[in-house]
Amino acid sequence: MKKIAFQGTDGAYSEQAALKFFNNRISTCAFEDFEDVFKSVLSGKTHYGIVPVENSLVGSIHQNYDLLLKYHVWICGEIKLRIQHHLIVNPGTSLKQLKRVYSIAPALDQCQEFLSSLKGVEQIPYSNTAAAVKMIRDKRLLDSGAIASTVAAKKFGMKILHSAIEDNEQNYTRFVILTRKSIKPAGKCKTSLVFALKNVPGALWKSLSVFAIQDLDLYKIESRPIPGSPWQYIFYLDLGGDFFNKSIRRAVDHLSEITTYLKVLGSYPVGKEVIP
Amino acid sequence: MKKIAFQGTDGAYSEQAALKFFNNRISTCAFEDFEDVFKSVLSGKTHYGIVPVENSLVGSIHQNYDLLLKYHVWICGEIKLRIQHHLIVNPGTSLKQLKRVYSIAPALDQCQEFLSSLKGVEQIPYSNTAAAVKMIRDKRLLDSGAIASTVAAKKFGMKILHSAIEDNEQNYTRFVILTRKSIKPAGKCKTSLVFALKNVPGALWKSLSVFAIQDLDLYKIESRPIPGSPWQYIFYLDLGGDFFNKSIRRAVDHLSEITTYLKVLGSYPVGKEVIP
Repeated sequence: MKKIAFQGTDGAYSEQAALKFFNNRISTCAFEDFEDVFKSVLSGKTHYGIVPVENSLVGSIHQNYDLLLKYHVWICGEIKLRIQHHLIVNPGTSLKQLKRVYSIAPALDQCQEFLSSLKGVEQIPYSNTAAAVKMIRDKRLLDSGAIASTVAAKKFGMKILHSAIEDNEQNYTRFVILTRKSIKPAGKCKTSLVFALKNVPGALWKSLSVFAIQDLDLYKIESRPIPGSPWQYIFYLDLGGDFFNKSIRRAVDHLSEITTYLKVLGSYPVGKEVIP
Repeated sequence: MKKIAFQGTDGAYSEQAALKFFNNRISTCAFEDFEDVFKSVLSGKTHYGIVPVENSLVGSIHQNYDLLLKYHVWICGEIKLRIQHHLIVNPGTSLKQLKRVYSIAPALDQCQEFLSSLKGVEQIPYSNTAAAVKMIRDKRLLDSGAIASTVAAKKFGMKILHSAIEDNEQNYTRFVILTRKSIKPAGKCKTSLVFALKNVPGALWKSLSVFAIQDLDLYKIESRPIPGSPWQYIFYLDLGGDFFNKSIRRAVDHLSEITTYLKVLGSYPVGKEVIP
């Protein structure tokens, strides 16, 4: 069975996304840092890696954009996972007993409506969602809960006291799948690029013009600072179509005339929105 | 004397930037959250507010972009402060005695070269830079240091053991100054806008075209997710020129034809890069 690297501990949303993407036909391998996921793919230690790149409420996970630039891996797929947060407790704990709720800070933030309805319950930030579940189980804390995924509840044999407690249902995280070699995708595709522009007037507009001329859809643009060059940026684009398509190749050729750096991150099928 | 609101505790980089911007002719007022800074300006409790919007190494401070959208304040100025980190200790502490260094996580990250040269010294994340200085002073920790600004060292009567320990000298934070009423700026200006686009092909390219047609410089583009509308974005632009200039007005009129939302955040003089 092929292996996929993810960041976090067993039961993390990244692991849930990986299992969904590969229909459970993959074994998962947890790493402490996002950078370790990239290194594991590049070294061939795992066949694939999965990292989150953006959340529909919070925005981009910039660290992973920076790592896509640093490591020569390819994006071969994406998945948009609906993030459902659940209040997880030790079997036997009731809502009345709760004094503390642990989770990663953004997850606590995303459940404020529910959490503020629990009078006098303290919210405590924890390093990650699944680790919070493991901690309250290991310490047998009967007055504490954790906010995490169903996978985390199942993995640690814990009880879901309240399900889907997130404030906003339109909470999706987009993950990309990484490989060491590029693939030739089929079906409706997108292509991800990263580039730096020459310092000339209208450079960004010109760079988008090459795609507009070819009627290519622009899904996303993200800018990141160039370390050592204050107020200069590198741009990440997601475009409709695949790189084996003539119009994208032509646009990218054209783009290369006004860039100081250009890298294709991969072409891959447009991901579905999935509910765990 | 006029008052300016900033986030953090006395001696924070935001306070240093505020004092630089107003040549020390202002009194400062600390608030716990960025949101409180916006509220304080809007209520008239303080004449001005100052918030960081981007760092040249780390990228944008998205929370403040989101708050610029939420609160109807105006940007009336900007300043780019060179971030110099200093190792600050209680008088009498030597490098040999150091066992722990406290600071906000990004500051620790930005001093890795120096810190890793101190063998066996533990790095401990703290809520903010100046608060770390205050804590080691209040507890009289002689085996601990804090990384913060010269203002923080001075304010708490502490000693700078090593100055300018940051890895990268090109470390600037850009702060914007907020007011309740818009100003008419003089000199070389920029204008900040925020807008959402109709969901039509090539919309972003068209939005940039209105500025390209008028030969306006684009300094920065930033995209943020629209909560509740996954994979749709709101865009922040910084342009050369002021809004009282005919070509920007014409471009913005033109832009309004393809936007579903458009707000001018302010026109203000282009800020200088300053060293504390």
